[in-house]
Order: sequence, then C-alpha cells, then structure tokens
Amino acid sequence: MSVNVEYHFDFASPNAYLSHMVIPSITQRTGVKFNYVPVLLGGIFKATNNVSPVVLLKGVKNKGEYTQREIERFLAKHHITRYAFNPHFPVNSLAIMRGAIAAKRLGCFERYVDAVFDHMWAEPKKMDDPAVIAAALEASQLPAQKLLELTQDPSVKQELIENTERSVARGTFGVPSFFVGNDLFFGKDRLREVEEEIVIQARRLS
Amino acid sequence: MSVNVEYHFDFASPNAYLSHMVIPSITQRTGVKFNYVPVLLGGIFKATNNVSPVVLLKGVKNKGEYTQREIERFLAKHHITRYAFNPHFPVNSLAIMRGAIAAKRLGCFERYVDAVFDHMWAEPKKMDDPAVIAAALEASQLPAQKLLELTQDPSVKQELIENTERSVARGTFGVPSFFVGNDLFFGKDRLREVEEEIVIQARRLS
Repeated sequence: MSVNVEYHFDFASPNAYLSHMVIPSITQRTGVKFNYVPVLLGGIFKATNNVSPVVLLKGVKNKGEYTQREIERFLAKHHITRYAFNPHFPVNSLAIMRGAIAAKRLGCFERYVDAVFDHMWAEPKKMDDPAVIAAALEASQLPAQKLLELTQDPSVKQELIENTERSVARGTFGVPSFFVGNDLFFGKDRLREVEEEIVIQARRLS
Repeated sequence: MSVNVEYHFDFASPNAYLSHMVIPSITQRTGVKFNYVPVLLGGIFKATNNVSPVVLLKGVKNKGEYTQREIERFLAKHHITRYAFNPHFPVNSLAIMRGAIAAKRLGCFERYVDAVFDHMWAEPKKMDDPAVIAAALEASQLPAQKLLELTQDPSVKQELIENTERSVARGTFGVPSFFVGNDLFFGKDRLREVEEEIVIQARRLS
C-alpha cells in the first residue's frame, strides 16, 4: 500500500507549471508518484467565488514586484531554466484540459501533460487557439487530430466537469492543489510540506 | 559585521504574532537577532491599496477552512500552545503600535512587544480600548501610564508614520514582512526561507 498523492492542475496556471517541474524530484526522493487530476480552474473559481491571484494583485503597490521576485527565487532554487510568462495570459484552458482527459483515454497522458505545459509556459504559445493547439501537439508527436476530436466527446467533457466538482467538494479553491491522503496543500510554495507529509504518511503505512 | 534582519510587524495581525513566536528559535539556531520595526498595517494597506487577507477570503468557499487548517499545521509544527483568534478582530492597533515606539524610548521594547502580542493573540483582549490596554500593560508590569502618555507625543506618532512609509518604500504591502539584507520575504510561511537566507548571507559576511 502506497501513499495516495493527487495533483489537481490546470495548464492555465503558471504556478501549476512550476509545480509540475518540481514534482519529478519529489517522486525521485520519496518513491511516490503523483496522480495528476485535470480540473478546470475557471470552474473551481466559479464554484467557490474565487478569482485569480493576478486579479487580486492588480492595483496593489509592491505585490506584483514581490510575486515576480518569488517566482525568480523558485526558478533559481529548483534550477528551472525553461519558463516564460505567457504573453496571451489569461489563456482559456477548456480545450487543452479536455485534451488531458482525452489523452488519458488514448494512453498518452504523461507525454501530453509534459508537452502542453511546455507549449504554455516555456515556448509560450496561445494555447486556446485550435490551430495553435493542433500544431503544438503535432510538433510534440502527439495524435493531434484524434485528441482534438475526443475533446468534443460528451463523456470527455463530463469527466472534466466531474473532476472539477469533486475537487471543490474535497476543499480546493484554486490550483495548484495537492492532496496527500486527505490533507490539502495549496500552491507551489507548499511543495516542501507536501514532500514532508508524504514521508510521514509513508512511514505510517510501512 | 552581522546579517541585518528586520521584522516589520503590527500587533493587529495574527500571522505577525505567530511569526513572533517562531523568531526566537531562528535566532537561537543562526545567532542572528531580528530587529523589530513597528509599522502600521492600516497605513501600509492605504499606501499600497491592499486589503486584509480576511477580507479577500470572505465569501470564497473552502478558502477559510484551508487558512484555518494552515494555522493548525503551523501551531503543531512549532509547538505553539498559546494562540486564540481575537474575537474583537479587527482590532485598531494605532495606540498599541504607537506604544511600541514609546516602549523603545522607555527602554522596555522587548518586554512590551512580548506582552502586547500575548494580550492580543493568547488572552485575547480588546486591545484598542484604552482601559483594556492600560490594565493589560499594568498586569504585565509595564509602565502603563508613561507609555500611554508617550503615545500622544507628536514625535512618537511621527516615528510610526515614518517607519510605515519607509517600509512601503522598501517594498512591503502587508505584515508580517521580513528583510534579510535587502531581500523581502512576506508572510509567516516564509520563515524557513528567511532562515535559509540568513545562513547564506552570514556565510558571505564571515
């Protein structure tokens, strides 16, 4: 029996990308894999009456500069060299999040998540434009046509809705969110505590 | 030459109290003392167009519960047993913050800070009521009458204003805020990074 760790993510969030870049090192140290759960951030915000931190810091003096400094520190600490704030922000992530559900069905989920995060926050591209999405997926050797077709499948749409509803029911109000067992941690700045909790729960189970 | 660490605080903030409870252990491990700088949180908010996190999470589903859970984790991690959310929140901290400036002049700053944080967030009392303040200071064997008289001194009032303005000029937008050298860290959840930066800067200076 292993610790159950869930990572609730949406490609729309730069902090979700930055977390994604750090998760492999936590898995390497702890031996515990993160289960990636695609959720729709817009849906979470709507259900919880929350808004993006980017909205909250608008017009607040000093906070934007501090947030930028925190990102620089995070990049330096974790040796992340591929990151660029997406100039098309906010990017509507509905199609690419449905694509994540579709990729699970097509058996290319991990490659899809890696690729789309990279196209969003390293390249970065306008990943709510169907032509841009298709070209990006093709460039990453993913079955673009099949994936995009599946995003129109009602059961794919429904699965994303249900993931999002379950996430809010479990206590989330944004992404990146992490569950270690039933313990919720919010934000990329909690990854250290996530790792510590994984170690604690793993000991309990062993 | 030692690392210069500043702690910009206002008694009004529960997270400032919680940070105050942890700072001694950081000093013990690093040998570096934190210089406490009294600032007026209301003044910082006004100058930066910021608002309290309590205001921001009002009406947002799940966020209040998560914030509560994070406080419980912080208390457990740092073995803090004396903490109770002040039922009179928000408490107008103008008088007790001027009192902190007054206490510096009377040579009882450290005892004053310990006592007032305790009356605010452990007892907890309505520390914007002059009679309550006076009784609390007396109970803590502080020169209540002299302190309260000094809070009316124009130069004491002016010093608090100037501390606050300098704080914002250096990049703060709330409390608790920490400067390690010129590096700003915001929030009780950054105390670990504060300690790490102290260690790094201390090595550079030695």
